[in-house]
Parts: sequence; C-alpha cells; structure tokens
Amino acid sequence: MTAAIEKQALLYTGKAKAMYATNDPEILWVEYLDQATALNGKRKVPIDQKGRLNNRIASLIFKDLANHGIANHFIEQPSDYVQLVRRVTMIPLETVVRNAASGSFERKFAVPHLTKFAEPVLEFFYKSDQLDDPFINDSQIHALNVATPAIVAEIKRQALQVNQRLTAIFAAMGVQLVDFKIEFGLTTTGKVLLADEISPDSCRLVDLKTGASLDKDVFRKDLGDLTSVYQEVLMRLATVEEA
Amino acid sequence: MTAAIEKQALLYTGKAKAMYATNDPEILWVEYLDQATALNGKRKVPIDQKGRLNNRIASLIFKDLANHGIANHFIEQPSDYVQLVRRVTMIPLETVVRNAASGSFERKFAVPHLTKFAEPVLEFFYKSDQLDDPFINDSQIHALNVATPAIVAEIKRQALQVNQRLTAIFAAMGVQLVDFKIEFGLTTTGKVLLADEISPDSCRLVDLKTGASLDKDVFRKDLGDLTSVYQEVLMRLATVEEA
Ligand SMILES: Nc1ncnc2c1ncn2[C@@H]1O[C@H](COP(=O)(O)OP(=O)(O)O)[C@@H](O)[C@H]1O
Ligand SMILES: Nc1ncnc2c1ncn2[C@@H]1O[C@H](COP(=O)(O)OP(=O)(O)O)[C@@H](O)[C@H]1O
Ligand SMILES: [Mg+2]
Ligand SMILES: [Mg+2]
Repeated sequence: MTAAIEKQALLYTGKAKAMYATNDPEILWVEYLDQATALNGKRKVPIDQKGRLNNRIASLIFKDLANHGIANHFIEQPSDYVQLVRRVTMIPLETVVRNAASGSFERKFAVPHLTKFAEPVLEFFYKSDQLDDPFINDSQIHALNVATPAIVAEIKRQALQVNQRLTAIFAAMGVQLVDFKIEFGLTTTGKVLLADEISPDSCRLVDLKTGASLDKDVFRKDLGDLTSVYQEVLMRLATVEEA
Repeated sequence: MTAAIEKQALLYTGKAKAMYATNDPEILWVEYLDQATALNGKRKVPIDQKGRLNNRIASLIFKDLANHGIANHFIEQPSDYVQLVRRVTMIPLETVVRNAASGSFERKFAVPHLTKFAEPVLEFFYKSDQLDDPFINDSQIHALNVATPAIVAEIKRQALQVNQRLTAIFAAMGVQLVDFKIEFGLTTTGKVLLADEISPDSCRLVDLKTGASLDKDVFRKDLGDLTSVYQEVLMRLATVEEA
C-alpha cells in the first residue's frame, strides 16, 4: 500500500517536524527536524542527528503501543528522517500525564521534586502559540468549544492507557517516566486517535540508577550534549523493542 | 438559642473579615471590616461603611439562598458589622462560576469582554496566599489531597445551584451576574456547606441599563467611590428581598 506514497506540498513546519501532504489524502509525510526549541519556540538551536533519533524512538514506541492495543497515527518509517502517519484533524490540546511532581507542577504547588502521585495527574493545555498554551480545565474546554465532554473523556481514557504502557517500556529500559505530553486528533469517522510524537522531546525521563535527565531538559537546562542522551535512549529502547 | 452567644478570642483576621470564637464551639462571630484589598492583599485601603454594607448584603443573600433550599453557614445578623455563622472546616478552594467572559478568563483566552457562555464555566483556585491562589484542576485537587472527587462533585453541584438563584436575585435588581467566587467548608458530620461571604467583593456585577460596574472592580480599577456603589447594591437588594 505505502510503497506508492509520494511526498507532495509542505503543509506546515512546526517546532520539531515538517508535515507534507502525499498522493493519499489520508496519509501525511512527516520529516523530523535536526533542531531543538525551548520557551515555546523562542529559543531554537540546530542539534545534530536529533531528527533521526526522535523519528526512530517515536516509531518504535508507536509500534509498541499499537501492538498493545493502543491505536495511533503511525503507519511506517520509510527512512531515517521520515515517518508516514494517518492524517487527522488535530484537537488543539496538549494532554499532560504526570506520575511524579516536576516542572510547572512542582513550581506551582511547591511540592518536592519527583514526589510520586498515588494516581497519575492529568492536565490539559490549550495549544495556541498566540495565547502561550494556557492551562485549561474541562469546563473551559467545553465553553470554548475546543472539544466535547465525550471527546475529553475519551482522551483521558487513552492517555491513562498510554501512560501504563509507556511506564512499563521505560521501566524495562531502567528509566522512570516522570511525565509526558501527547496530542490527539479526530479521524474522518470521528474517532479520537493518538497522533503527533512520543519522544524525549515530549517525555520527562530520569535514569533510575544515576538520576540523570534523559530528555529535552538536558537542552532546556544546558546540562550537556543532547545528541548523546537521545542516542542512549534509542539504544536502550531498541534493546527492549527489537529483542 | 443565639441570644446567649458571646464573642470570645480572635481566631483569624482575613482580608475582609475578622473571625472570633464564641461560647458555642459550633458558632463563629464574624466582623466585616471597613477595608478593601486588591492583588491578593498587597494593596489595602480603608473604605467607609464597607463592612456594614457587605454584612447586610451577605446576610440578605444567605437568607434568600436558605429559603430556596441552598443550605449555608448563615445563622443571624445580630448587629451592623456582625454575623453569626456555623463554624466549618474550610476546604481551601475558591470556586469560581462564570456566566460571561471577564477578568482572568478574558485575558487568558482572548475572548471578547462579556461573551456569554452557553453553560456556566466552573473553575477552582487553590486557596494559598503563599502560592498566590493558583488555578487548579480536578486531577491536581485529588493528587494534592485538597478534596476528594466526591466532595468536588458536591461543590460543583451546589455552586451551580447558587448560580441559578443568584442570577435570578440580581436580574430582579437590574443587574447582570457575570461571575462570582464562593467557598465551602465541611460540617462536623462531613457535609459540604456554603460558607464565607457573597457580596460585591466576590461577585462581578454589571448594571443592565448603564453597563456600569457594581462591584469591587470599582476599587480595583479606581472607577469611583466604592461606598456609594455598595450602597446602591444594598438598596436594590433590600427592595427585592424585604418586599
Ligand atoms: N497525524 C497528524 N495529522 C495532522 N497533523 C498532525 C498529526 N500529527 C501531528 N500533527 C501536527 O503537526 C505538527 C507537528 O509539528 P511540530 O513540529 O510538533 O509542531 P508544533 O510546533 O506545533 O509543536 C503539530 O501542529 C501537530 O499537532
Ligand atoms: N463558616 C466558616 N467557618 C470557618 N471559617 C470560615 C467560615 N466562613 C469563612 N471562613 C474563613 O474565614 C476567613 C474569612 O476572612 P476573609 O477576610 O475573607 O479571609 P481571606 O483573606 O482568607 O479571604 C477565610 O479564611 C474563610 O475561608
Ligand atoms: Mg510539537
Ligand atoms: Mg475572603
């Protein structure tokens, strides 16, 4: 099926990926970029290999999730920097799942770093560069017609499933999944489908042995060389997934 | 019963009221203060008559709510500045109900001023002077053990009931109830009970004829004399309630 897929017009260049149309209106051609951004894109730096590493990491994770009953937009990875995905209408929400306190949660509520939650915490942010991605609650999501209560409930259900499986994958890699951000879209038949990416750009990962950050915090906080950190994550993931 | 109530030790002086113990451990002696604050107490100014006006307004509203089946902490108003209320263990949440966009909602989501919502919007803020009352969602409330999901559900239910009745009271006064903030506590038997105050300090009120603000925004934005505005609100409320 996908052998005949051809890259067509550039649709959108985001902070981490460029999205192209293809000859199949249901399929997008995604190119992962060799760059990292912080502060909602205000800081942008080229990072050698990052696109290739994140593409491979995301592809392996999406395949694993599908194998564990969590449908998602991934179709295949035809080359180092390219992913073919099912095109959806994005729901403009960033869904954050937290297993322990970090980042904005830690700052906002003055909770000790990495305090574990008895149950995962769910948060939504309204994806709007213009508004600076504000934190939003269910009632506001409804009032602003961002999504219906039924769609929000389905997003929560899937997000918790993703969290369960991701936690297990990372544990097998010797890594604590502290929190992560995912995005969902609607298929042409109105189904909520996991889309975008899952990578060290969108997860907060801590090495269980050393406590070191294995994610984009290395870039955000200038802790070292991002490429070698992502290389390490891919190596461990490949060991787990390709065994 | 309350004839024998005696004022005892000062328990707490807040931004708008001073709370005293009484000879009955279940009853608090509340003195409404002649002062207004803004910016979470950072700005504080004496306002002639304000305590008396807010005490009378809150007393009339609490009585009306009780008459309409919405239980609350109000017992009686023994004098101009004093209210006797049922003592509860406060739940540290400010519950905000919005019927139209204003204030932080308007700023955060860039929605035109006073855009009406199809259904009321509910928001919670974690009452903590130290943390600056952060906006909090249901999942975070649960994770931080601020309140159980059952208590949050009961707060929402009562808040919407309060909104229905308050909207009707203010409409009869020629006033639009744009939004308001309320607080709840738990009784010794674990019931969620409406407490604190309902006054122009905690409601956003707009004159239906002139569009003028009839609430603490007059103070926050330096729009004129707060005492005469609160006097006007009390006059209209008394006309409606004491008819
Ligand atoms: N399957 C999909 N169909 C349509 N759009 C998608 C899909 N997956 C991701 N997107 C969108 O494509 C863009 C991905 O590029 P990215 O660089 O992450 O952008 P951003 O700067 O918005 O984070 C995002 O806007 C994302 O919502
Ligand atoms: N029925 C009640 N029982 C116990 N505490 C109450 C009751 N009603 C209100 N309170 C609390 O008393 C204080 C009221 O004073 P206020 O000046 O409004 O304080 P604040 O500066 O915290 O807003 C608040 O902390 C409020 O939560
Ligand atoms: Mg992105
Ligand atoms: Mg108060």
